[in-house]
Amino acid sequence: MSNVTKLSDKFNLFQVPWHPKIVGELNDSYVKLAKLKGEFVWHHHANEDELFLVIKGTLVIKLRDQELTIHEGEFVIIPKGIEHLPVAQEEVQVLLLESKTTLNTGNVQNERTVEAEWI
Amino acid sequence: MSNVTKLSDKFNLFQVPWHPKIVGELNDSYVKLAKLKGEFVWHHHANEDELFLVIKGTLVIKLRDQELTIHEGEFVIIPKGIEHLPVAQEEVQVLLLESKTTLNTGNVQNERTVEAEWI
Repeated sequence: MSNVTKLSDKFNLFQVPWHPKIVGELNDSYVKLAKLKGEFVWHHHANEDELFLVIKGTLVIKLRDQELTIHEGEFVIIPKGIEHLPVAQEEVQVLLLESKTTLNTGNVQNERTVEAEWI
Repeated sequence: MSNVTKLSDKFNLFQVPWHPKIVGELNDSYVKLAKLKGEFVWHHHANEDELFLVIKGTLVIKLRDQELTIHEGEFVIIPKGIEHLPVAQEEVQVLLLESKTTLNTGNVQNERTVEAEWI
């Protein structure tokens, strides 16, 4: 049994920013949705690349040597080991593709660290 | 160095349906874009799950026991081993997420089999 997942329906199920939710799994990856608002924390993922596809809004991802601006309908892949700081001036809706082992704050564990749950 | 990839720019680079193009890689996966038009062939992927996210148009995926209709902003994940037949009455633009080992026609090798190339 396969199901069709409508992104906008899923985004309506949660509001809190920086708490990614799992909406699908394939192979060794999770598909997650997140709302982002404000500034996150500098971190990197030692062993996992991470994809950000912007569904709504404009996301800035600061790297140590450049700044990426990602609009609706655009994506970036942050390679493993690369420090990054997501910043959302206004609320941004993103689809994330990550290894099942990826923690939202990567190498950093602090009050922003959350375990993703299925919705 | 990370780059922002704009889906619509990439879709403008090719026209031929059923020839997925690689636009990104992360971990053991490729992000691919494809235009679909008409009916493909029944096939399955023995070892790999496959994600279809519809960017434009309406995609039907027939399974042996159900039929999925996927609109813009919706996705499905076809688990490994499940036979499926994508059908696009009008042109559909999809983002695919697949293992690097995935062949477009899965277990079937015929004139529809193509090697995905980077764009």
